[in-house]
Amino acid sequence: MPVRLDAQDPRFAEGFEGLLHAKRETSEDVQALVAGVIDEVRKRGDAALIDYTARWDRQTLTPATLRISQEEVDAAVGKCSDELLRALDTAAERIESFHRLQVPETTDYRDAQGVRLGARWTAVGAAGLYVPGGTASYPSSVLMNALPAKVAGVERIVMVVPTPDGAINPLVLAAAKRCGITEIYRIGGAQAVAALAYGTATIAPVDKIVGPGNAFVAAAKRLVYGTVGIDSIAGPSEILVVADNRNDPAWIAMDLLSQAEHDTSAQSILITDDAAFGDAVAKAVDTHLETLPRAAIAGESWREHGAIVVVRDLMADSPALIDRLAPEHLELAVEDPDALAAKVRNAGAIFLGRHTPEAIGDYVAGPNHVLPTARSARFSSGLNVLDFMKRTTFVACDADSVKAIGPAAVTLARSEGLDAHALSVALRLPGGGQG
Amino acid sequence: MPVRLDAQDPRFAEGFEGLLHAKRETSEDVQALVAGVIDEVRKRGDAALIDYTARWDRQTLTPATLRISQEEVDAAVGKCSDELLRALDTAAERIESFHRLQVPETTDYRDAQGVRLGARWTAVGAAGLYVPGGTASYPSSVLMNALPAKVAGVERIVMVVPTPDGAINPLVLAAAKRCGITEIYRIGGAQAVAALAYGTATIAPVDKIVGPGNAFVAAAKRLVYGTVGIDSIAGPSEILVVADNRNDPAWIAMDLLSQAEHDTSAQSILITDDAAFGDAVAKAVDTHLETLPRAAIAGESWREHGAIVVVRDLMADSPALIDRLAPEHLELAVEDPDALAAKVRNAGAIFLGRHTPEAIGDYVAGPNHVLPTARSARFSSGLNVLDFMKRTTFVACDADSVKAIGPAAVTLARSEGLDAHALSVALRLPGGGQG
Repeated sequence: MPVRLDAQDPRFAEGFEGLLHAKRETSEDVQALVAGVIDEVRKRGDAALIDYTARWDRQTLTPATLRISQEEVDAAVGKCSDELLRALDTAAERIESFHRLQVPETTDYRDAQGVRLGARWTAVGAAGLYVPGGTASYPSSVLMNALPAKVAGVERIVMVVPTPDGAINPLVLAAAKRCGITEIYRIGGAQAVAALAYGTATIAPVDKIVGPGNAFVAAAKRLVYGTVGIDSIAGPSEILVVADNRNDPAWIAMDLLSQAEHDTSAQSILITDDAAFGDAVAKAVDTHLETLPRAAIAGESWREHGAIVVVRDLMADSPALIDRLAPEHLELAVEDPDALAAKVRNAGAIFLGRHTPEAIGDYVAGPNHVLPTARSARFSSGLNVLDFMKRTTFVACDADSVKAIGPAAVTLARSEGLDAHALSVALRLPGGGQG
Repeated sequence: MPVRLDAQDPRFAEGFEGLLHAKRETSEDVQALVAGVIDEVRKRGDAALIDYTARWDRQTLTPATLRISQEEVDAAVGKCSDELLRALDTAAERIESFHRLQVPETTDYRDAQGVRLGARWTAVGAAGLYVPGGTASYPSSVLMNALPAKVAGVERIVMVVPTPDGAINPLVLAAAKRCGITEIYRIGGAQAVAALAYGTATIAPVDKIVGPGNAFVAAAKRLVYGTVGIDSIAGPSEILVVADNRNDPAWIAMDLLSQAEHDTSAQSILITDDAAFGDAVAKAVDTHLETLPRAAIAGESWREHGAIVVVRDLMADSPALIDRLAPEHLELAVEDPDALAAKVRNAGAIFLGRHTPEAIGDYVAGPNHVLPTARSARFSSGLNVLDFMKRTTFVACDADSVKAIGPAAVTLARSEGLDAHALSVALRLPGGGQG
């Protein structure tokens, strides 16, 4: 049964602390194995990719067939229904429009001392997108990871996706095509991450790797971090729903289950000001579970990690709890969601009002669905265009402006004992290094 | 002697590859030791901090004296010369002005389908700033790390600085005061990082830790990453100077040495189109080394890791080399630095023209001096205000707008086999879950 907590209970603090720090994921220790795979790919390149793909995906490849051809992509698109392609297109258009507003501007100005200053943003040269194969192969993830890179202006976007026994979700290839990705390799696991990071004869290396994956992929991303940039390593999904008793319990119950069905280690929490409403939601969860296709997963997640927290006053009491949980997804099904949102510091994404189920954000709302998990919304943000760009600052002095600001630099550099620093400025001042 | 490479040489590619991948740092394996220290601080809190500080900094502290008092700070400021305080103030004002332009704006709009969408930025709740003690204790680093946090609006900025044998650089405390930091603890090493990440009875935990440190501090930051956010782990400093023969070789030589004097593993590279000018710079370096106080360090760095690369045409040939090196600092001492900068994708910061020595950016130009090293400018940026903020997206649908965009979400969710996702949307559509 999910945890029940009442903020009036003297042992509430302890119970809530438990929610915050419960380990939901069993971390497999795959680091040594993964390090070995990466070494092999660095040493043997394509040959290693081909060997691992034969062993783990039961696919016989050659350097020439590592890449999925445009004909295969087009054939896959042909297998998708028009309804599905239209829905994909709606999602892609909305995601692209939302992300286009994130493109940052260059600053370039001259200050009162005559120093020219500024910062410009450039896209990373090449980005690699990992797409899981099999049942966790989600076309929506392709859109959410690739479109920010496209909007950022990344010139080369490479996708890797394993095709165990030759199987691939056609809509994944359709999503890639919709994003303009033409360079797709049928490889997966740590070996694919290694190929993206270090390159092989067939696959040129990239600068940044993003996308979800299993424990092997996550470990590989950690190990290649530094050689390339990576997105954050996502933990299990979470939703926190804040709801008063003027909601339909069946709606709120389904929202909780929409996270729970992802994974048995997902977490769904309800905060309400009405214990009876909490009971009604719990009952509706049980009713939904009777018919839900993924009831086994969703039920286990809800029983093991779910929680219903009852507070006295949602507006007064919930913001502090929300900020400590720093949820990936925050749904505010209350009378004045804006007022409550204004009191919240930490959340990956907020869904405002009774008609905004979190799942709308997973597909078509526009904002990214790759969001900070495990309380990291305290210090990090969802995937966005800036993740595929970097900022270069610039300074230009002339003989006059270096004279205006240089002496302070000389003073500070000398005080830090860095005389070459001081002299490199002083040489450009009147009197040169003698100043 | 520094490496000499000529782009016309048939073996140039190989030599340049060597520059790119040379290991300059010996990584001490301190992870196990550091993990033990972190565990102790988590278990024993203040008592562990006090024990480690007695052992490593030879300081006897109590929970009450862990914190540096305002009186001590004021006394330290009193020891700094007026000239030094004025220089600090010039630097702080310029850094603050530059960073103020980075504060991002909230977006909030309604799209054609009536969906309200947007993203807002909030500061992290608390930031911790690590400041090294002893000879590597740089007041300029305090400004560069603290001011972006202050500009971001971080409510609580905590500084930790070890005071081995009671010693502290008074200008470091003056810099902290200038940044408005009042919460300062006289602790350092992995134990200080652990206290910031997990908290003790005296020190409340923070959300993000930034600042330079030795191998122990770097390992501790890596280990607490995830529990808190961290800045990047900086490698040894680098400069790439692109200079034609119309520069004074003595100026360029000093610029190269200003990086080299940081550390024996720092790297200074000159790209020029005139081999004779390269020779003149090499000679000027040797001349400077005869009198430079840190000649031992700078000389070793230059001999072991320095390089002079001669190309045929700076404008045509250097951009590709620059992008591969992705230098932390790029100085363009050429006739038209803007034209050359426009052809460059990867650099942490660019210094334009003959009168802009890199060191001006270390202190007073305004942009941050915490910059991506080890080729990570390919995918990451210097420290900035955004590092102390995070972005929360939001969506609000009403009954009409969820009807407009919901069906596409239902279609995609069903195709991904996520029925609770589909139903949580469908329940809000006309016809409810039957649609």
